[in-house]
Amino acid sequence: MSSEQKQAGVGIVGFGTVGAGVAQGLIQNHELILSRTGVSIKLQKIADLDIESDRGVDVPAEVLTTSSDELINDPAVDIVVELVGGTTFAKALTLQALEAGKSVVTANKALLAEHGEEIFAAATKHHAEIYYEASIAGGIPVVKALREGFVGNNIDSVYGILNGTCNYILTRMEDEGILFDDVLKQAQEAGFAEADPTLDIDGFDTAHKICLLANLAFGKSVKMNEIHIEGIRGLSMLDLNFAKDAGYNIKLLAVMKRSEEGIEVRVNPALIPHSHLLSSVRGPFNAVFMRGDLVGDSMLYGAGAGRFPTASAVISDITDVAINQAANAKGRLPSNYTYGEDLKLIPPNEGTRRFYLRLLLLDEAGAMGKVSDVLGDFGISIASVIQHEEHEENSVPVIYLTQNCQESDFNMAIDKINQLEVVISEAVRYIIDDFS
Amino acid sequence: MSSEQKQAGVGIVGFGTVGAGVAQGLIQNHELILSRTGVSIKLQKIADLDIESDRGVDVPAEVLTTSSDELINDPAVDIVVELVGGTTFAKALTLQALEAGKSVVTANKALLAEHGEEIFAAATKHHAEIYYEASIAGGIPVVKALREGFVGNNIDSVYGILNGTCNYILTRMEDEGILFDDVLKQAQEAGFAEADPTLDIDGFDTAHKICLLANLAFGKSVKMNEIHIEGIRGLSMLDLNFAKDAGYNIKLLAVMKRSEEGIEVRVNPALIPHSHLLSSVRGPFNAVFMRGDLVGDSMLYGAGAGRFPTASAVISDITDVAINQAANAKGRLPSNYTYGEDLKLIPPNEGTRRFYLRLLLLDEAGAMGKVSDVLGDFGISIASVIQHEEHEENSVPVIYLTQNCQESDFNMAIDKINQLEVVISEAVRYIIDDFS
Repeated sequence: MSSEQKQAGVGIVGFGTVGAGVAQGLIQNHELILSRTGVSIKLQKIADLDIESDRGVDVPAEVLTTSSDELINDPAVDIVVELVGGTTFAKALTLQALEAGKSVVTANKALLAEHGEEIFAAATKHHAEIYYEASIAGGIPVVKALREGFVGNNIDSVYGILNGTCNYILTRMEDEGILFDDVLKQAQEAGFAEADPTLDIDGFDTAHKICLLANLAFGKSVKMNEIHIEGIRGLSMLDLNFAKDAGYNIKLLAVMKRSEEGIEVRVNPALIPHSHLLSSVRGPFNAVFMRGDLVGDSMLYGAGAGRFPTASAVISDITDVAINQAANAKGRLPSNYTYGEDLKLIPPNEGTRRFYLRLLLLDEAGAMGKVSDVLGDFGISIASVIQHEEHEENSVPVIYLTQNCQESDFNMAIDKINQLEVVISEAVRYIIDDFS
Repeated sequence: MSSEQKQAGVGIVGFGTVGAGVAQGLIQNHELILSRTGVSIKLQKIADLDIESDRGVDVPAEVLTTSSDELINDPAVDIVVELVGGTTFAKALTLQALEAGKSVVTANKALLAEHGEEIFAAATKHHAEIYYEASIAGGIPVVKALREGFVGNNIDSVYGILNGTCNYILTRMEDEGILFDDVLKQAQEAGFAEADPTLDIDGFDTAHKICLLANLAFGKSVKMNEIHIEGIRGLSMLDLNFAKDAGYNIKLLAVMKRSEEGIEVRVNPALIPHSHLLSSVRGPFNAVFMRGDLVGDSMLYGAGAGRFPTASAVISDITDVAINQAANAKGRLPSNYTYGEDLKLIPPNEGTRRFYLRLLLLDEAGAMGKVSDVLGDFGISIASVIQHEEHEENSVPVIYLTQNCQESDFNMAIDKINQLEVVISEAVRYIIDDFS
């Protein structure tokens, strides 16, 4: 390398929680990053409508601007960091930066899940790079692991705990016996969960992330509307406790798997065995468990959100882009893949899996037999049945854990079972994932 | 990127377990890697003294040679993969390749821990690259995580389970109550542990790896003879059981920590709390738990050895080097760091920590008091004492868990305690790591 010092200029659009973390990280660890990479990464501009409020980080006044145009058009800005969130202005901004030949680093999973193809095409067209490590699992370098660390592997499956808010809620319910609505309310009051928690607890945030991971793992573009998305809203303490007795936690899981029939991508609460490492991922932490044809089972674990963990991932991307620029190696790695486009995406609610089924039955002779008959009619084998103590007069909760079966068969069986006279209230069902 | 296909030629020296895995991976996943990177990576040559034995992988006959010189001098070989092991021929070979301007990928932790400075200097001098992901924790991309994923972080601490053989032995002892010597013997018979297990169970293999990680985390060269290295040979079932009752596993841990006094690097069996994620790392698996000033706590987990997991890491390195070459970006990242050379390395047996102490005491009034007096004299506070049932007439095992204390004070206290008349056999002591 030449002894002349290499430089890169960074402009951050969006001076919120993460923006302030990135600014602080770039300033306080500037020398460290220079020592490790040989590139001096300078914070050149920060654009935000509000440049008055105190963000708890000292930035030179001349860095601040209210104009993202000024930032993008600043010739000293090589890398634009998009941290505004949303998909409207963020999209316009990202395209504008790419068209100006600036590389973009973003933490915006919704933007890429919804408009990725257009954005990746713009990056290629204008010889710019777009990096997005912070979009998935916060500080965990999972994009880097899939694109580079496991580059030689056919990825067979990925199981992710990708939403810290959901995992925090489930952990507190399990540990402290607090009801879903109460934990959610407390998390909202503490500013830890959004006032409108839909994106998190109904699984959409997790789905954005798994769509991006699916492209990295399988080389295929997978869209939100093509996959099954089910969140944890209203999850009952009953089911957490029954699952626990049977040796399982319930986690909101993002799953993608390859089989001879194609690939399966989905988001749903799932029972996972206590013995599995993902079961030990507690509180707001994230983890991604992967299986590759060479490397076998691997897991990456860490903080999935928060000012500094997210900043860590953004700075990793900034550094990669800056080094590529300094080495005249822009486009060193493709932003996304297309080699797996021919893979079949298995439609939602098809595929083979195990189920947890909770029924409230009339406490009368033959009730369980009637349920078993219906399951048998659809070819569904039962691995175990747990009949718990009566909890109200004349009614008894019964838990069935099935063997592997076709989800479509199971759903038809449930429709029949819900109509049985011995069934008091509608069946509750969750997928069991035993990572086979 | 240009539409002309980019190519890189690979030569593997050492056609053993890992060499065969790398060859097979490069062949069977050639198209996948090309799709993901735009570079066609061709297996050009394999050199080994034995080119007759069946390795279970189909390679074209013209690829095989008994001459590593022929391989290094082949103009179609851009990247030399050193998989011969040892530190004599491997060193000569590596230097020869670098001097010829070829980049080198190696899985040889002993080579780099012992001769790293010379080898890294040769790489720089000859504008070649040296990559070594597979040297540490097999298939786990921990070098990439530290060099790139966490590049923006001051690393505060790293805790590694880096030797699969040791972790396998400890797990079987815990789970099945099999004695150390018996598990080791079984592992040797199964070909899973070496006939001479010194490197593994006495901690030297782990120490090689933590020396390499220390450079990546702290920017300082740390040598084997500067650090405390203690293995698990002869670990007693008694201590595993007592530790378990107190809420701990015993793991062979590689530790490095930064504090105001400097950095501490060591290898020793340690008690770690059941609630910590590293406690869930079982069998032959490896894991690296890291704390960075931005990212907070992270862990990477996976297979630390074996044909294909190691090949996965070697292929990741080959791919990185091939892409750098294709992009004219050789030397994109430095091979090692020097920015932290001024950091003080805290000498072995200094530093502050907690201890587990097991004593066999005479079963008489005042025995425990005498021990407590000595500990008190050296300013060592006791967090808990567990007196177990008598196991032989007139003797009783007693477990002390201390608070944080100076290791030097603790060692002096132990010398005194061993001389007490109430102490029947020499004190057994282990470090407690609670990741504070």
